[in-house]
Amino acid sequence: MTDCIFCKIIKGEIPTTFLYQDDQIVAFRDIYPKAKVHVLVIPRQHIKSLAETNASHSQLLSHLLLALPKIAQAEGLNNGFRTIINTGVGGGQEIDHLHAHILGG
Amino acid sequence: MTDCIFCKIIKGEIPTTFLYQDDQIVAFRDIYPKAKVHVLVIPRQHIKSLAETNASHSQLLSHLLLALPKIAQAEGLNNGFRTIINTGVGGGQEIDHLHAHILGG
Repeated sequence: MTDCIFCKIIKGEIPTTFLYQDDQIVAFRDIYPKAKVHVLVIPRQHIKSLAETNASHSQLLSHLLLALPKIAQAEGLNNGFRTIINTGVGGGQEIDHLHAHILGG
Repeated sequence: MTDCIFCKIIKGEIPTTFLYQDDQIVAFRDIYPKAKVHVLVIPRQHIKSLAETNASHSQLLSHLLLALPKIAQAEGLNNGFRTIINTGVGGGQEIDHLHAHILGG
């Protein structure tokens, strides 16, 4: 998706510090943080939203979910954190590339 | 977990209307709704929180995530919905049994 800001971040077209990255996902700070720690975790693959996922994404989805506590702990959120995934306009989704928010602190 | 309210709901010890259920997860309304539609989706298996999950839960986690849009749509949230998973005291988790909130409307 050439117009997707998250795809540009993944491709390095928008310089971004990755807090975590592997072959399937990357994590970076939200530029408009709504908490002391506010990290976005996104798949490298362009998937519009959770509503566009299907069984073919199972491994990726569990990989992303399992990474969240590790990323949160690396950010010092040892006491807990909130995960938010907004789906669609009515769900407050602002970027049409699946992403999980980690909020805490 | 004999003291877990969500395990009691799953076992039928607390009468609850399931909006969705299968062999791995159940969905029911939050008794203190924070939106017009507020549904909880939980695994039948007692897992304390996202922080307690590991690779052995991969299939369950993706199954739960993939079910969310279907449950949301069945509740009429065709325009979108918010998913929240609170982990730990610092993340606002109130019941120590992994659960995803679906909020919308």
